[in-house]
Amino acid sequence: MRTAYQEQLHSLNVILGEMCDLAGSAMSRATQSLLQADLAIAEDVISENERMNDLTGRAEEQAFGLLALQAPVAGDLRGVVSALQIVADVDRMGALALHVAKVARRRHPAKALPEEVAGYFAEMGRLAVQLAENAREALDTQDPASAIRLEEDDDAMDDLHRHLFTVLMDRDWKHGVAAAVDITLLGRYYERFADHAVLIGRRVVFQATGKTPEQLNA
Amino acid sequence: MRTAYQEQLHSLNVILGEMCDLAGSAMSRATQSLLQADLAIAEDVISENERMNDLTGRAEEQAFGLLALQAPVAGDLRGVVSALQIVADVDRMGALALHVAKVARRRHPAKALPEEVAGYFAEMGRLAVQLAENAREALDTQDPASAIRLEEDDDAMDDLHRHLFTVLMDRDWKHGVAAAVDITLLGRYYERFADHAVLIGRRVVFQATGKTPEQLNA
Repeated sequence: MRTAYQEQLHSLNVILGEMCDLAGSAMSRATQSLLQADLAIAEDVISENERMNDLTGRAEEQAFGLLALQAPVAGDLRGVVSALQIVADVDRMGALALHVAKVARRRHPAKALPEEVAGYFAEMGRLAVQLAENAREALDTQDPASAIRLEEDDDAMDDLHRHLFTVLMDRDWKHGVAAAVDITLLGRYYERFADHAVLIGRRVVFQATGKTPEQLNA
Repeated sequence: MRTAYQEQLHSLNVILGEMCDLAGSAMSRATQSLLQADLAIAEDVISENERMNDLTGRAEEQAFGLLALQAPVAGDLRGVVSALQIVADVDRMGALALHVAKVARRRHPAKALPEEVAGYFAEMGRLAVQLAENAREALDTQDPASAIRLEEDDDAMDDLHRHLFTVLMDRDWKHGVAAAVDITLLGRYYERFADHAVLIGRRVVFQATGKTPEQLNA
């Protein structure tokens, strides 16, 4: 039988799952607004960030409620502390999607991205959405294997990010400094989004096992 | 009389204070290595990041030890959960100082910064160090007023950051795209360093009062 504590921790994890979905969907539409210079989509992403802030507030309240409610045992405590860290990660992922949408809005009606880097961002966007989905899956299944998949996708993101810089640094770059500044920041947003998804995977492993992924594989 | 729990929470806060000092000193020297293209200092900052990782590990262990040890009451729990969040912030500040030092190392023996932006980074470095000091003071005194000072310094950082972009975007910019990419990333590192210092202040307020700064001022 589940304790009241476990019930409430479960409903906290449900909010976290919803937040992951929201971060993934925000990044998906932010990327679309960026690639197509679509102002309406960018505005949607920006205004829907409110929803993420609400969920963050609710999740934090629920976590603190859990802590204050009763004196939970060690494994339960680990769960709620990890949950609080995950809230911070996924909230940040939402903020990074918001930053992407803001660049799209700032450059509208022009496209922020010259043609030769658009493909990089389409792929970085695809990976980011996949990372958010995998983070959600890790939360749902509490399966250490999904945390390892997150690290692999993150490696792919890092590769793209590195290649992007070689394009920017090329002597043939014709799009000037303003575009390069935008692209540098945008690349960083996607890379950080991926890093936070990986952290979620690590925290899930810790939540489930009390160990880091490295300790599990040792 | 202090409980064993409070003693241990205090010694956790001592580690956090040490981490703030380390982050401030790392950013101070990283800025110096950047402004003077000083490879030895950059290498020092990079190798000393190990120390930050050690302290992060020790602080997390101690926090989880506190949680597992006994069933603490609500106020104590708030203290240890906030402490865990602060560990993550200050660890990130250390990572951002490390990033700055790595840019200095990558560009050595050249300077990463053209003369016309060096002054911005000198000032951003000064502010960053001050923010780390104020975060430490907030931790030591648990005084909500010090959290408010952090927000003011952060506003000054944001202003500098905005001005920096106007210099980059100027038609007279003569230093090419590679320098602009470096400066964009560097500016972001300082800005994020400041953001995390502000978050520490907010968490200290919550640790001490159970309220956010906004709730306190309402």
